[in-house]
Amino acid sequence: MNQLAQYQREYEAARAKNLKLDMSRGKPGADQLALSDELLDARWVTPSKAENGFDCRNYGILDGIPEAKRLFGELMDVPPEQVAVCGNASLTLMYDYIAQCMLHGAGGGAPWAKQGNVRFLCPVPGYDRHFSILEHFGIEMVRVPMLAHGPDMDLVEEYAQDESVKGLICVPKYSNPEGKTYSEAVVRRFAELKPAAQDFRVIWDNAYLVHDLYETTDPLLNIFDAAQACGTEDHFIEVTSFSKVTFPGGGVAAVAASPANIAEIRARMFVQTIGPDKLNMLRHARYFKDAAGVRQHMQQHAQILRPKFEAVLELLERELSGIASWTAPRGGYFISLDLPAGCAKRTAQLCKEAGVVLTPAGATFPGGRDPEDRNLRIAPTFPPIEELRAATQLLCLCAKIAAAEKE
Amino acid sequence: MNQLAQYQREYEAARAKNLKLDMSRGKPGADQLALSDELLDARWVTPSKAENGFDCRNYGILDGIPEAKRLFGELMDVPPEQVAVCGNASLTLMYDYIAQCMLHGAGGGAPWAKQGNVRFLCPVPGYDRHFSILEHFGIEMVRVPMLAHGPDMDLVEEYAQDESVKGLICVPKYSNPEGKTYSEAVVRRFAELKPAAQDFRVIWDNAYLVHDLYETTDPLLNIFDAAQACGTEDHFIEVTSFSKVTFPGGGVAAVAASPANIAEIRARMFVQTIGPDKLNMLRHARYFKDAAGVRQHMQQHAQILRPKFEAVLELLERELSGIASWTAPRGGYFISLDLPAGCAKRTAQLCKEAGVVLTPAGATFPGGRDPEDRNLRIAPTFPPIEELRAATQLLCLCAKIAAAEKE
Repeated sequence: MNQLAQYQREYEAARAKNLKLDMSRGKPGADQLALSDELLDARWVTPSKAENGFDCRNYGILDGIPEAKRLFGELMDVPPEQVAVCGNASLTLMYDYIAQCMLHGAGGGAPWAKQGNVRFLCPVPGYDRHFSILEHFGIEMVRVPMLAHGPDMDLVEEYAQDESVKGLICVPKYSNPEGKTYSEAVVRRFAELKPAAQDFRVIWDNAYLVHDLYETTDPLLNIFDAAQACGTEDHFIEVTSFSKVTFPGGGVAAVAASPANIAEIRARMFVQTIGPDKLNMLRHARYFKDAAGVRQHMQQHAQILRPKFEAVLELLERELSGIASWTAPRGGYFISLDLPAGCAKRTAQLCKEAGVVLTPAGATFPGGRDPEDRNLRIAPTFPPIEELRAATQLLCLCAKIAAAEKE
Repeated sequence: MNQLAQYQREYEAARAKNLKLDMSRGKPGADQLALSDELLDARWVTPSKAENGFDCRNYGILDGIPEAKRLFGELMDVPPEQVAVCGNASLTLMYDYIAQCMLHGAGGGAPWAKQGNVRFLCPVPGYDRHFSILEHFGIEMVRVPMLAHGPDMDLVEEYAQDESVKGLICVPKYSNPEGKTYSEAVVRRFAELKPAAQDFRVIWDNAYLVHDLYETTDPLLNIFDAAQACGTEDHFIEVTSFSKVTFPGGGVAAVAASPANIAEIRARMFVQTIGPDKLNMLRHARYFKDAAGVRQHMQQHAQILRPKFEAVLELLERELSGIASWTAPRGGYFISLDLPAGCAKRTAQLCKEAGVVLTPAGATFPGGRDPEDRNLRIAPTFPPIEELRAATQLLCLCAKIAAAEKE
């Protein structure tokens, strides 16, 4: 108890500082946003004709101007014809695609809403916004643990034998929250999946495809290349966006899919919209020019983010070694912290009472229920580095208190 | 037959000119787009903080920045709390709302997709994109003829007694394609409707609320004021956008609804998006400042459009008096032309063969089927005025041929 009492004295001292720090969401910091300020200049959209001569100020062009389709095609390494560029957020593209499956089915199958119980596999820990979408549509979530190099594929293969399992939703590169990248073997097993459901769809949320922290990237096998070899390309819907490249909300999003799936998506979009914001596409396409331009821009983000991630990892190492475990991602937006069982909620609560807001404990699991109450998602990007250090320091202290209370 | 032979000679002469003219869609012309070019200047989004201090370059603010909500609130004459500003197109807002009703119901009712046959009333002639949405969701369309001051409300009241009738979709001001504005009496009868369905919803597509051609506007009674007096405000979902104010696709859209309906819309949006493109909202809100700023801007549009509408009307008057009838709208984007029965398709075909593209005959009716094959929608906005005159001249000639062929 002596040790706990010591921690508690430290905690009271910290609390007296009336901190107000936010490590809850994966938001870029103000310095990152400033990297793209030049994008707002009128010159990127003047003159306003796309390379095919289409005036981006007017109606039309359902699924994106050619230069934007080419740019996203290059980034995702798929032919531009298999890309639809639309809207500002990949979250909306995923929502809209699943809504489409619910009401109109996938690949000619019956609407999911008419197929009784529909289930989705969810690698855990995972992204709370994915779970919200599935919950919203009444899709039952089946947990699949994340292993070192991706989801437990033995389990995925087993569950996929059940026809009510309609798909899986995941972040294959720099996963949210662990920052893991699926290995080549894992991606190949995805491609080789032979699900019972003919309308099985994997939502491949490639949110962090260019979000490296270091000079070398974690290689991710192109899912469409792997799938084509197995004749399973219809199983995969890939999305990404520029939300964390330029401006969240002010960016552009894209979906890539097999020709058959893109045709279904386009057919829905044809009813849903007359056309996207082509001026914002033109702005981005001209500003970046090509994938190399995007990658160069992302190096500036990395320069800002790397010290933040390393500051958190250094403090975790110093304060929580032997008590907790965590990931040391080479990209993405999060660090995943695993505390002793039963300590996550208590730690988050202690943090909150001392003025540090974390992503709610449990948020990384479907329904917000972490069965072991262990996992916390740390989002190091938004606070300035000094605030981040102070917040992490307090987090470590709270974790030690929670762990000591359990002893 | 002499007269017909004369027309045919004229037609062959016109065809020899190899015209290539498009009067098919309600698109602004290049001169109209240029009116808003200044909007693309960086100064409107610099600095990028909304009036509540929120940085529009980052995530957040689900349903619009305060200045955008206030601007649309002022335009639609509803409190800003009852407005959600989101996305670039009112078409998408309507699609998304009906999708929401299909999967999650309206006002606590069962999902429409689980209620068996669902029907919607469609004033005809009407907007083909409305019909496409209803068709896409498998909603049966019931035609209601437009009378002089709005839909036949006797019929609307009668049909609304059927519980399977879930709503109505319409353009109450400068209707598409007739350019009619619903009278005060019609709006009051909408407000007073006592439908059998508890989850009855009227999609009030106020696309042309500031799109006057003349100095005085066609007054439209505020539907929410009228409905509030009857306790029926939950029946109405109003949408509008800046597509034909600034840039189609590059504008901002908004939905207004009762507090209960806005709460349901927000709950869905919370799952569908982290936030809209707030930079584009900021751009528009600062550029216009207030509703008066929008109206002033629209006067410049009117100066461009008025001569175009008048040129078409003059030619119709000169060429088709006694053969056809048409509307002379004081706003909106279209002129509706009624030919002798059985002449619309033939006229459009003759036009096409001579290089003039019209909105397909029948498009103004559900399923593209005009029971009398009479109605054509003329869209005078896009072509330069000389081309518009040439196209209308040809249209009149084709109509005269089609009519003479019937004799």
